[in-house]
Amino acid sequence: MADNNNKQTDLLISGKYLLTQDSNATVIKNGALVIREDSIIETGVSDELLEKYPGAEVIAENHGLIMPGLINTHTHAAMACFRGLADDLPLKKWLQEYIFPVESKLTAEIVYHSTLLSLVEMIRSGTTSFCDMYLFAKEVARATEESGMRGWIGEVLYDFPSPNYGSLVNGFSYVEEMFEKYKGNERISVTVDPHAVYTCSPDLLIKLKHMAEQHNAPLVIHLSENKEEVKGAKEQFGSSPVIHLENLGILDERVIANHCVELSDSEIELISRKGVKVSHCPESNMKLASGIAPVPKMIDAGIAVGLGTDGSASNNDVDMFGEMNTAAKLHKAATLDPTVMSAETTLNMATMGGARVLGAQDSIGSLESGKKADLIVLDLDQPHLTPLYNVPSHLVYAASGSDVVHSIINGKIVMRNQRITTLDEESIIEEMKGLSSTIKAMQKK
Amino acid sequence: MADNNNKQTDLLISGKYLLTQDSNATVIKNGALVIREDSIIETGVSDELLEKYPGAEVIAENHGLIMPGLINTHTHAAMACFRGLADDLPLKKWLQEYIFPVESKLTAEIVYHSTLLSLVEMIRSGTTSFCDMYLFAKEVARATEESGMRGWIGEVLYDFPSPNYGSLVNGFSYVEEMFEKYKGNERISVTVDPHAVYTCSPDLLIKLKHMAEQHNAPLVIHLSENKEEVKGAKEQFGSSPVIHLENLGILDERVIANHCVELSDSEIELISRKGVKVSHCPESNMKLASGIAPVPKMIDAGIAVGLGTDGSASNNDVDMFGEMNTAAKLHKAATLDPTVMSAETTLNMATMGGARVLGAQDSIGSLESGKKADLIVLDLDQPHLTPLYNVPSHLVYAASGSDVVHSIINGKIVMRNQRITTLDEESIIEEMKGLSSTIKAMQKK
Repeated sequence: MADNNNKQTDLLISGKYLLTQDSNATVIKNGALVIREDSIIETGVSDELLEKYPGAEVIAENHGLIMPGLINTHTHAAMACFRGLADDLPLKKWLQEYIFPVESKLTAEIVYHSTLLSLVEMIRSGTTSFCDMYLFAKEVARATEESGMRGWIGEVLYDFPSPNYGSLVNGFSYVEEMFEKYKGNERISVTVDPHAVYTCSPDLLIKLKHMAEQHNAPLVIHLSENKEEVKGAKEQFGSSPVIHLENLGILDERVIANHCVELSDSEIELISRKGVKVSHCPESNMKLASGIAPVPKMIDAGIAVGLGTDGSASNNDVDMFGEMNTAAKLHKAATLDPTVMSAETTLNMATMGGARVLGAQDSIGSLESGKKADLIVLDLDQPHLTPLYNVPSHLVYAASGSDVVHSIINGKIVMRNQRITTLDEESIIEEMKGLSSTIKAMQKK
Repeated sequence: MADNNNKQTDLLISGKYLLTQDSNATVIKNGALVIREDSIIETGVSDELLEKYPGAEVIAENHGLIMPGLINTHTHAAMACFRGLADDLPLKKWLQEYIFPVESKLTAEIVYHSTLLSLVEMIRSGTTSFCDMYLFAKEVARATEESGMRGWIGEVLYDFPSPNYGSLVNGFSYVEEMFEKYKGNERISVTVDPHAVYTCSPDLLIKLKHMAEQHNAPLVIHLSENKEEVKGAKEQFGSSPVIHLENLGILDERVIANHCVELSDSEIELISRKGVKVSHCPESNMKLASGIAPVPKMIDAGIAVGLGTDGSASNNDVDMFGEMNTAAKLHKAATLDPTVMSAETTLNMATMGGARVLGAQDSIGSLESGKKADLIVLDLDQPHLTPLYNVPSHLVYAASGSDVVHSIINGKIVMRNQRITTLDEESIIEEMKGLSSTIKAMQKK
């Protein structure tokens, strides 16, 4: 069909079901979609599309479910190297005795390799986009570029010296360099990332707000993660973290607030009114005993809520299928209402909800003509996915990341038949095994 | 080595780690164990055992973790056929409009095939023993016999007519026949299963207590699953479900109480004193919005607590790795204490804890010389299990059922390299796909 030999052949993916996550939650039985270059050009019934695009390369999965790739709205990918290093500890002890001592000695090399490992896990388990906040963010971006994933990536900034950029003034230039490098990049977006109100002075928060405005970038911050943070802010600033940010003029639609576990009803109303987006990280909040975020209330208030895994040090995986499962169940137990966080609501949080959080609702989050081709295919022909009465129910309550067989991001196949095409998984695992002794040693010094 | 050709050759399994779950929580690096007939005859370092047992058949997994098979202390295996049939509904509506209408038309055939499907899932995800309560229990037992799994199996009894045995008097004889058939069986144990205090009269409860005593069998009952059950019991009997059972003289060390979500401190003290065992089913309790059981308190009180998935209609899987992950995290969020339900405590609940609940602590739950050979091997060479600092942490917080590669039950290999040797997985999946239309139709009539 293509009259220009330089052009990539169209790619047609067909399956038993095509779950579009469009505004009507359309599920097409025996559905398919056609990808040209980086975008979806048509969705529909397989037979019709096969006839219409006879020149397309075809991936046909008779037992396959085609769905939008999942969007992880908050993670620290490079923390994969700390997975299981310390668990079941009080937050302060965990941070001060285990995480901070090793983070203070982190190197670009460790961050790069650890990010690669997390990217492998993310691709394997069906995530196609992620929002990352960490140190040595250029290394995170480098690894992301290589992986074929779509990333929103930010260097974490705070008042004390960073093991990456040293003093804060260098932090600003580091982030500016990232904006320069990734201007117009089709998969990498740069974000501005103040760590939290308890680690960033009002002055720093305001400066970073301006930087985000200047680059029209998201401002990503940990916010109201637990009672201690709220108590501390009240003591230090006379107001809760949310009100503190509001008083500084920070809260608006470019803010992505991670966690939001401790929110009063009036704060929910405020962040809804200001258009602040929220990344909900239930498993990390549970594991660190931060508490249970009032997510059903936030959704009722019209807030854009996405789902995040947080880093592998506090989860300890980046499997968004597991995260959906937990999210759907946790809020039922917390509210004693089995109707909250239905499978559909939860699935939406991990797809279109995530896209809205990242301000990317026009390009990702659903499978519709004109959108970027970010999608995954699951193998439904498995005991734990049998019988099948309801597709969203299975995706939230029964599926796991290991059911994903193919992943396509920005029109490119990044995993086929559970083999990642962009990265050398075996050598990444081996590299990390070697680095783990270094990390253990860093902890002891 | 064997001087009698009729005897099975010894089987030696070696791995990178052998997690014994013995009373010292011994983990042997480059560990192995030797199986003779149905039992473990020795555990130790691979090299030494390889030298000592030169005639043994060897399964060597350099990246493998050998551990006790997981014990699912509460499930309704045959409910796999209802997976995803109805979710996110108030309990009453879910039961009365979806589950009861189809259960009232259940057939032996559906129960048999649906149990097979659940057994496939259980084996695949690392469970080697389970305790089942359901209708048509002879079919559950038949499927279990064929699968090679170890099962504690009971026919559910209540005051109203059963779709299996009809009127209650036939129920007693049905259970007696099961005791007769499985007397001395090495893998199948029969239990006595009153459904709950709200479906069984005091007279029935007392009769079943006597039946359990007569056969020296566990008495399995749903107990204090939610606030509504407690409220109902107080209205009907003037006391909570736990006190009601105590008043009837039911509570003793043969009782396995499922759920126990709503327990006062004094009830915890009572069931501890009486030696009652508890099956904790966090995911089902969350999904049905029953609440959060006070498990850390129960463990502190010395109660034997095991882990259960409940049926696939309210979970919606039977993956005990997922259940451990949820259990460890849920109680941290509920108590705002990250030190409760450590990885070790949680892993213990799913292994030795489960064995204690079933009264089988001398034969299963740990890998020790003299115990039955019920064990699984996980492949550690995977991105989400790298790096590895702490084995229990990975098993609880990072592993999933799909990491299990081999399963051995009662000395027999039931899964090797993720292929089940005892059951025809493909035809079981196909059969269930066919039955699902029948079930859908049953729901509508």
